[in-house]
Amino acid sequence: MQLLKQKIKDEGTVLNEQVLKVDSFLNHQIDPVLMQEIGKEFADRFKKEGITKILTLESSGIAPSVMTGLFLGVPVVFARKRKSLTLTENLLTASVYSFTKQEENPIAVSGNYLKAGDTVLIIDDFLANGQAAKGLMEITAQSGAKLAGIGIVIEKAFQDGGAELRNLGVKVESLARISSLANREVTFAEEVTI
Amino acid sequence: MQLLKQKIKDEGTVLNEQVLKVDSFLNHQIDPVLMQEIGKEFADRFKKEGITKILTLESSGIAPSVMTGLFLGVPVVFARKRKSLTLTENLLTASVYSFTKQEENPIAVSGNYLKAGDTVLIIDDFLANGQAAKGLMEITAQSGAKLAGIGIVIEKAFQDGGAELRNLGVKVESLARISSLANREVTFAEEVTI
Repeated sequence: MQLLKQKIKDEGTVLNEQVLKVDSFLNHQIDPVLMQEIGKEFADRFKKEGITKILTLESSGIAPSVMTGLFLGVPVVFARKRKSLTLTENLLTASVYSFTKQEENPIAVSGNYLKAGDTVLIIDDFLANGQAAKGLMEITAQSGAKLAGIGIVIEKAFQDGGAELRNLGVKVESLARISSLANREVTFAEEVTI
Repeated sequence: MQLLKQKIKDEGTVLNEQVLKVDSFLNHQIDPVLMQEIGKEFADRFKKEGITKILTLESSGIAPSVMTGLFLGVPVVFARKRKSLTLTENLLTASVYSFTKQEENPIAVSGNYLKAGDTVLIIDDFLANGQAAKGLMEITAQSGAKLAGIGIVIEKAFQDGGAELRNLGVKVESLARISSLANREVTFAEEVTI
């Protein structure tokens, strides 16, 4: 997705060979027009999959997911990273390991909003080791819903997550795939679709 | 806002006299079409204020804020509830007391995205005691930006926050104002604009 790649080139900050900071339009400040374009693009790539629900993870997954949900005409459910006082019954849970924080974190979705019969599109802002995506897949499996695929805004293609998921036969659509962050520079890989 | 009130009537669950659960369309599952209508409504109510930035709090404030930002043509910044590894310099911070959790929680915004010269619209999902709104106002003040007003999706008008903020002269626009949750029933108050 050219608009996104240009935005990454213009505004992304490479902190080191592993970390790209895109706080100016995705992870802290959000560019609503870019989110709308991202939503259109995801909707276009998954429109034939019979999606009934989008599943994402708070907080950075919410904006692209809501725009995608608008174009696909389906609701969005965001997994919570901690327990909420008003969210205690009928929970679907998974554990997500964060390499940056070096800790396991629980994520949870209410079984009221994800069920057998749903066809799920998982959306997330980043794909690196695939831990968050796998957690969301586990929750989808627990619910009995069918997984249609995974939409990723930015994939770090030099890490293992994308290849692992595609090897499982999962349809993973990444709008920007980064092959390297070496020399404080963003290098893009070609897009891959299975 | 009639559409929102109807949604609250149809899908809201009154847990007790203080707590209304709207997990089916706002706080866990999100209805993108309703968010679009909410965004249109906020944009309409604040279009003459010269807004340059929307400030909200993760996670439930993000969806209505992004839609409002789309209609007003301005970026959204969401305050983080905890420190992020890639968000460490030039922080604007405030402390928000949660009555439900009975604890103080820090919230933080990067000073890179909120500055003197900005005119800020604060948006949040709920207004009860006004603690979150006051925290976001404090961050706005720290940045040197001008506060244009506060847009609230659901105001619990039987709690003090709304009256306190309006008494300070702040323009508070709530799309649904609830006067009571007694007898497990939602009763709406009239809308108030100053």
